[in-house]
Amino acid sequence: MQTNADTPFTVVPIAYVESRLRERSEAPRQGDEGAPDAWLSFEPAVAAGLADLRAGDEVILLSWLHQADRTVLSVHPRSDPERRLTGVFSTRSPDRPNPIGLHRVRVLVVEGLRVHVAGLEAIDGTPIIDVKPVLGRGAMR
Amino acid sequence: MQTNADTPFTVVPIAYVESRLRERSEAPRQGDEGAPDAWLSFEPAVAAGLADLRAGDEVILLSWLHQADRTVLSVHPRSDPERRLTGVFSTRSPDRPNPIGLHRVRVLVVEGLRVHVAGLEAIDGTPIIDVKPVLGRGAMR
Repeated sequence: MQTNADTPFTVVPIAYVESRLRERSEAPRQGDEGAPDAWLSFEPAVAAGLADLRAGDEVILLSWLHQADRTVLSVHPRSDPERRLTGVFSTRSPDRPNPIGLHRVRVLVVEGLRVHVAGLEAIDGTPIIDVKPVLGRGAMR
Repeated sequence: MQTNADTPFTVVPIAYVESRLRERSEAPRQGDEGAPDAWLSFEPAVAAGLADLRAGDEVILLSWLHQADRTVLSVHPRSDPERRLTGVFSTRSPDRPNPIGLHRVRVLVVEGLRVHVAGLEAIDGTPIIDVKPVLGRGAMR
């Protein structure tokens, strides 16, 4: 087993989001709250990893929330000042020590290195760092 | 919004797994396939982020699968040579470009910086990089 001791904790983008959402302020809090469909443009180097992705697949995208504030440990949930400050590990705040977004989406189209997905709340230019199949039944949120 | 241009793609461990699982070969494929309970030992620097974690919470752990081979793009699912080679983004293989594990677990005990969780398939010493609440109902796999 290769352990990659040279790069154990460096995340490499495998794709980038192309979306009409340009600013965090425009983005819904979750993908099922009116997020638009978006395209993912994958890096040629990972093409073999996409070989079995099909329209209709339900997948989990992990994104790198590149505009996040990584120093934040407590937030008002949903940025609502009426809600008391809450530890970030009990929230889905994008501002957290490792700003990794978790998104369940349905694949609409696969065209080579370009994949169209439904209902993605990530903004244009967000790096995607992993794609995983949804296992089992029921909602993955 | 701070963009942290100095460290945009570097993952920082927030905790480490303490488990009786010592080798990948011992670990079940998924947490609901006989994985043992495990302790998570968090870094003091992120204590404030844990403030609202409670016994009984269902959470998603993101781990850094530190023994993964990041060069792998196709695998035989579940390491079964009878299964045809499949693109890693259609599998849960730990070997993938960004070896991030996704684990849904129930919190059993919170003791300061130590958190006991049920059914975690990650091996002893695995870094944890994020904790998120499960949203909505149903299984998160």
